[in-house]
Order: sequence, then structure tokens, then C-alpha cells
Amino acid sequence: MVDVFRQELRVINVGVSGFAEAIRHAGGHALDLEWAPPAGGDLGASHALARLINRASVEEANRKAFAAYLASHPVLDGIGTAGTELPGMGERMILHAGPPVAWEQMCGPMQGAITGAILYEGWAQDRASAMRLAASGEITFAPCHDHNAVGPMAGVISPSMPVWIVTNREGGNRAYSNLNEGLGKVLRFGADSAEVIDRLKWMQRVLAPTLAAVVARLGSLELKPLIAQALHMGDEVHNRNVAASSLLLKKLVPAALSSGRPQADLADVLAFIAANDHFFLNLSMAACKSMMDAAANIAGSSMVTAMCRNGVEFGIRLSGTGGAWFTAPAPQVEGLFFSGYGPQDAARDLGDSAITETAGVGGFAMAAAPAIVQFIGGSPRDALAHTLRMAHITLGRNNTFTLPSLDFAGTPACIDARKVADTGIAPIINTGIAHKKAGIGQVGAGITHAPMECFAKALTALSSKLGVDEQKEDRP
Amino acid sequence: MVDVFRQELRVINVGVSGFAEAIRHAGGHALDLEWAPPAGGDLGASHALARLINRASVEEANRKAFAAYLASHPVLDGIGTAGTELPGMGERMILHAGPPVAWEQMCGPMQGAITGAILYEGWAQDRASAMRLAASGEITFAPCHDHNAVGPMAGVISPSMPVWIVTNREGGNRAYSNLNEGLGKVLRFGADSAEVIDRLKWMQRVLAPTLAAVVARLGSLELKPLIAQALHMGDEVHNRNVAASSLLLKKLVPAALSSGRPQADLADVLAFIAANDHFFLNLSMAACKSMMDAAANIAGSSMVTAMCRNGVEFGIRLSGTGGAWFTAPAPQVEGLFFSGYGPQDAARDLGDSAITETAGVGGFAMAAAPAIVQFIGGSPRDALAHTLRMAHITLGRNNTFTLPSLDFAGTPACIDARKVADTGIAPIINTGIAHKKAGIGQVGAGITHAPMECFAKALTALSSKLGVDEQKEDRP
Repeated sequence: MVDVFRQELRVINVGVSGFAEAIRHAGGHALDLEWAPPAGGDLGASHALARLINRASVEEANRKAFAAYLASHPVLDGIGTAGTELPGMGERMILHAGPPVAWEQMCGPMQGAITGAILYEGWAQDRASAMRLAASGEITFAPCHDHNAVGPMAGVISPSMPVWIVTNREGGNRAYSNLNEGLGKVLRFGADSAEVIDRLKWMQRVLAPTLAAVVARLGSLELKPLIAQALHMGDEVHNRNVAASSLLLKKLVPAALSSGRPQADLADVLAFIAANDHFFLNLSMAACKSMMDAAANIAGSSMVTAMCRNGVEFGIRLSGTGGAWFTAPAPQVEGLFFSGYGPQDAARDLGDSAITETAGVGGFAMAAAPAIVQFIGGSPRDALAHTLRMAHITLGRNNTFTLPSLDFAGTPACIDARKVADTGIAPIINTGIAHKKAGIGQVGAGITHAPMECFAKALTALSSKLGVDEQKEDRP
Repeated sequence: MVDVFRQELRVINVGVSGFAEAIRHAGGHALDLEWAPPAGGDLGASHALARLINRASVEEANRKAFAAYLASHPVLDGIGTAGTELPGMGERMILHAGPPVAWEQMCGPMQGAITGAILYEGWAQDRASAMRLAASGEITFAPCHDHNAVGPMAGVISPSMPVWIVTNREGGNRAYSNLNEGLGKVLRFGADSAEVIDRLKWMQRVLAPTLAAVVARLGSLELKPLIAQALHMGDEVHNRNVAASSLLLKKLVPAALSSGRPQADLADVLAFIAANDHFFLNLSMAACKSMMDAAANIAGSSMVTAMCRNGVEFGIRLSGTGGAWFTAPAPQVEGLFFSGYGPQDAARDLGDSAITETAGVGGFAMAAAPAIVQFIGGSPRDALAHTLRMAHITLGRNNTFTLPSLDFAGTPACIDARKVADTGIAPIINTGIAHKKAGIGQVGAGITHAPMECFAKALTALSSKLGVDEQKEDRP
């Protein structure tokens, strides 16, 4: 023991940093361990975590959920119309991204997109009356997720809009998404001008029936192999879809030319797709939604089945708590802004597109997409680090989606809410940035993280649902 | 000095390894420096190297050559017919890959491809008479490179074949390549069966005129931005062209549908291109040829302007020695073989496709293409190392072709023959492997290196050409 006092002191300090300062002041060496209390210091959630962690029934439920995710087999089955295709879709209903939110609370770009959708549907003839109608209570607003759908950014889907239909051949569940409009002034970023509405009308009149005929001609298109190939071509299929969009076009072209559709329509449709490097995004999202729904509603599972944002709140769902939303204020996005814009212009985090991260791609697969840092900021080394970090909070690797730069390791997939709360590592999301005002559109792209508060609330609810009482000491 | 004898000995041994063994035997530590004499021990070449290295006139010539390479601006200008388009192309002439080689000396796949070309031209009606005709001396054989062209593998171009026309807008020089037939049983890998000839006929009758009309409609297509984008999508545009081929298709589709060509032809042509992930290879090669020709014939330059192989010999050209070939036996290729084949089936290194490595892409840009190791063997780490190693023997970086995984550094480009001889680092080439017999086709893909002997001979010739006499001591 005496030896200790003769040695030079090299201390690792766990906890309050003041202890380390005292040692340094006295001439010793002290290293602070980067540490934070579990669940961001939320006492109730910490207790829930203590009860849920290493719990055999939760482990077993997560194994089942992860297996269902891995076994999912999403295929593109066609194009439909939201009003007739989406389960529970009402006549005067408009779907939006993220957890539920009332008109008055909605962010600028979401109000803009809804105004645009009302004009597109012909329910009002000008912006002012559209906004009055939206505020009148005559229109029902609901999350896309509650109708098996997902939409990027504002995520607005109204009854006349065409939707991609993706079926999980393994479980039979279907998922939907709207069609991508391109970049610039587009509804999903909150723009609602005449050119936006005209494009949406053309998409309904020409794009959708042409694509429907082409997809019918193609038979069905398996989406996992296409995503896997895109990951080998520098995409992460959330914020970078240039390879996936090209591969999709390559599949569509031969079917299009033998579809018997009018050549003028084919020319317009194929040129529209060829000009949009983000065209695959919505299909990527629908594929991911179908994979995550395959793993939903497994009692006791702490696996995250949805992460989404409405520009005001960030919401998550766990497999074991079904349709319940656990929300926290939506974070800001840090990234690169288009010329003339800056952080003061940015809406908060927005869109259902974080379903890609939920499914192990997007930010979780950034190691596949080093070139994306030119769009969102950071360095290729950061991109690798993001993927490696996510392996600490996921249930496993998806070996269907391999990452060449990490020696073909699978993407870290399926977030365990317990691991998020325990490690303090928040899921990364890489995403577009909308202007905070309606009518303007995209102003940048960047990175953000899911708020810890969502996971704390979710664990508390899961623990209650499991009927575990704080007073009872029933841990094995 | 006495201190040295009191210290533990830690020796770095430069030269004969026997010295180090003696030290180790006596209980000392010795590290062998990995070292080889310059120019592979060729005494004449070592003297030439000693005279050429650090020589101001050579440095200045290389600066000019490298600048011309960087400034080159290759655009796709259309499709022509070899017989009328290629300068110096004769009526009964067949071009082949690599340096000059006589019929009797040619490797199996090249003889097979030439037999196929004779059948395709209708100069003979069966294989036996085609081979007799080839051996009769009535047909002139010449390297593609001597007619401003390049061809992958056997590289056979006969007068009726369609060719890509690439113009360097900066220097005005033109480069040509044949059109890619796809994989499997194809002429360039030495197959010459009826299906091969039928496909070539279809390419002449339908593919070429359709593509010509589409390219005319497109105006002209800049090839450097397309290559740069493909490098950000996991291609190295020699042995992996899936992204570049997809990007090319994306450019062609809208032009095709507004070209006014018959819909049935468009359907066949676009389906053919969409089904061939290597379709861009020949265009990549023509672009690289036009970049390298821009830097050719600069007196005193030791920059390599061509590397190519005919399956028997490997040949290089230097800018400062014009059209002269410096050859050595073609090496074997190490790689992965298709099921049922092995190294005993492989032809030696073959094709003009090493023009891509000469231009700083292909093996030199392997850091861009980690997924290629699934096709050619090795690990993604090897792919990075190959690119980093090539920086030791090149004149600079091409910042138009950036590599995301190396923090967007430019590709190492333009081989200095002096640096190759001085460092002993041979240029890497990644390439397809043909069966050594005619008529079979591709059996694998892998990696090889340019033989040191080519560079030794080239430096000796450059030194002589500069009029530097061994007796004269005129070094500055």
C-alpha cells in the first residue's frame, strides 16, 4: 500500500470534474472519463432502464423483432392513389410528417405544404382561403405513419396524390410514400406556388399512370438488392440517392419502352426521373417503413420502429409500445446552407425520412457515402465514425446492406432504446433543411440527433406496460 | 566514440542482407531496408536515370506534358465507322491491342478475336479459312494506338466496326474506341462464335446509327465531369464502370426519346446499354487516350503516355520518345477466377485498357472503388494502399478526379518513368482475365503491374535521344 504513495499518480476520474481539478492542482495527472448519467439524468427512465436492461423477456422480444426486420422482403408492387389506397384515409384528410400536430402549432413549411395541398385538391382557390379552411377544423390532419405511409420533409399526402406501394412479401404488410417532386421550389419543403401545384398535377395526370404501367410491365421490383447495390455506389439512401435513382431508372427504361404508353409521356416521365438525383428517396423510405412495420407490435421489445419529426416535435415508436408516440422538441440541424441562407433561416428537424436511419441506412450507413460530406458538411472520417458509433446502440448488423469501406461489415441496424439511454449515444440523422417560413423551400442539408428525452419517455412507458412495479423486486 | 560500443546496437542495413544476418547472429538488432538497385539493376538504364533525374530540361518538359494532360477537355462527339474515321486505316487492316505483334506470335484470345473480325467483315466464311487468311499476309495488323484508337482486351477493330469519337476540345486531337459488347462470349475476350458475330452485326446495323442520332441530339457530352462523378460513386472506370454506365444511360435516355428514331430500335438499344455495367469502359478509354495524346511528343519528357498489352508483350510510350514502343514480356494477372477456371487457364495481361491507369484512374484510383475487391480480390485497405503507392511515381494529382475516401485528394496521375525506375514501384493495373485459348472468353479479373524492363528501356532511349553522351559530363 505504501508503494502507491511513492508512485506518480495517474488518476481516471469518473463523475464530477471538480475532483480531477483538485488532483491536477496538486501536480497529479487526472483524466476525466466522458460520462453522463443514463437516460440523460431522467430518474424515472433510469429506474425503467435498470429494470429493462438484461431482462430475458425484453431480450427475447428484441431477438424476434430484429429477426422480423432482417427477414423482411420489400418489393415495389405499383402506384396507387392515396385516397383509395391508404388504410383509414378520409375524404377531407391530409397526412403530414412526424407525430401528431395541430394546424396552429405546425411549422411554416408544413403549413405551406398543407396550403399547397388544399389548392392542389381544389378545396380552395387561393392561399388565404386555403389557410382559413385549414384552420377551420373541417380538414382532419394525421401523421403519415398512422396510415402506413411516410413522406419526406413536410410529408404532406392528400387524397388525390399518387403513392408508391411497397409490400413486404415476408409479412404481407404494405407501406406507402408519395412521389418525389425534385429539388428547389417543391411542396415537401413548404413551397406552394403555381409551378409547385402544376408539377403535382402533372405527376397525378402523367407521371403516376405512366409509372404504374411501367411497374406493371416490370412485374415487381425487389428493393433490398437495389439499396444494397446503391450502398456500394456511395449512397446512404437518405440524403444521397444518386446511385439508387440511376439504378432505378436503369430498371424502368426497358420496361417503359415496351409498355405501349404514348412516346411523348415516356419521354417526359423518363426525363423527369433522369433529372432528379433524389427520385429514389421516397421509395427508399417506403421500403424502410415496410421493414420496420414487419417488426412492430412485439410485446416487450425495446426496438425503435419509427423516428420522425414534424418540425416542432421529434417522435419515436417502440415495437413493444405499438402506436404510442414519445416526443420531445425537434432539434436544429447542423450543416451546410445554400448561398444566401444561414442557421437563422432554418426550420427545425422535419420529415418522416428518419425511417431510413431507423432501418439502419441513412446516417447509420454514412460510411458507405463519403462524398455526402460535400453536401452536409464534415469529413469522410466523420462519416466512418458516425457508422461505427451507431453500432453501440443497435441490436445487430444487417448483412444484406454491407459497407465496403468497413471491410463489408453490415450496417448497424435496429436501435435498442435501452442502449441509447444507457450509453447516452443519440441516433444520428442526416437530412435536408427547409426554410422556417412557408413558400420558400430547401435552404441546406446537414446532421442532427434524435433527442434523448424521446427514449427516456419510451422506456418509462415500456416498463409500465410490462407491468413492472417500482416497488416489486422481480428481477431474475 | 567509445559510447557507441557501450550502447546496444540497433542497425539499419542497406544492401546485401548477409551483413544484417551477421549482426543478428552476434546478438545485435538489424533491420533490412527494403531496397533494390534502380531500374531493376539494369546498368545502362541506371546511368540513363542518373543523367535524367533532376535534369532541368526534363523537369520543364514534364511540367509542360502534365499541364497539357490537366488542361485536356475530352468530349464525346459522336459515332463513326473505323474504316472511314480512323487516320491511316486501310481497307484490309485489323487493329489490335498493345504494341505491334505478328499473327504467328499472337496469344489465343487475340487470334480468336481476329478470326471473328474476319468472319464479321465477310472476308471468309468459316473459321479455318479466316485463320488461313490471317496467316497469309494479305491482312495488315497494327496497334490501335498507332491509329489514335484504343480497344479493351484483344482490342480488335476492323474497318466496318463502329467507333466512339472523342475530341479533346483543348488540343483538338481525337481519340477513338470500339463499342462494348457486354460480358460472357464476346470478341474482345477471344470468342468468335455465331452469337458473337450476330451481336457485332446488330451493333453495326442498329446500335451505332441509333447512338449516333442520340449523341447528335445530345449535342456533345463532357467526359471528365462524368468520370469525376463516377469516382464518387465507387467506380475506378477501368474494371468497375457500373456508376459511369448508369450516368451515361441517364444522359442518353431523354435525348433518345426525343431523337425521332424508331421506338423498337430505341427499346433494344437502351435495354442493351442498361444490361451492361461495363458499357462505359470503352468511352472511358477513349477519354483517357485523348488526355494522354494531348501530352504526347514533348521533347525531353519522361512522362508515360501509353501502357498497353497484346497478351505477349507489355509496351509503353514516353512523351519524349513519341511513337516508339518499349516492351517486355506481358505479366500474368493475379486475381479471382470465375467458377471452373484457374490461373492455368489465364492468358497473360492483355488490352489497351491500361490507358486508364496511364491517365490516373483505373488501378491508380482504386481508393474510389472499395467494392471492386469483390471482383478482383484483396481488401478495401489494399485498394487505398494501391492509390497511395502510385503517388510515389506520378508527376502530380489530378484535382478534377477527387477521391472521397482520401479526403478528396486528386488521383495520382501521369507516371514519370524516372520515378518508376528510381523507386522500383511498378504501375498497378487492374484488369479482366481472358482464357488463353481462342473462343472461350473471360475467366476472371485481377491485378498486375507494368514490367520494370519497359521503363529501363524507355529511359535509355530518352537519354540517347537527348543526345547525352556517356562520355560527356554536361550535367548542370
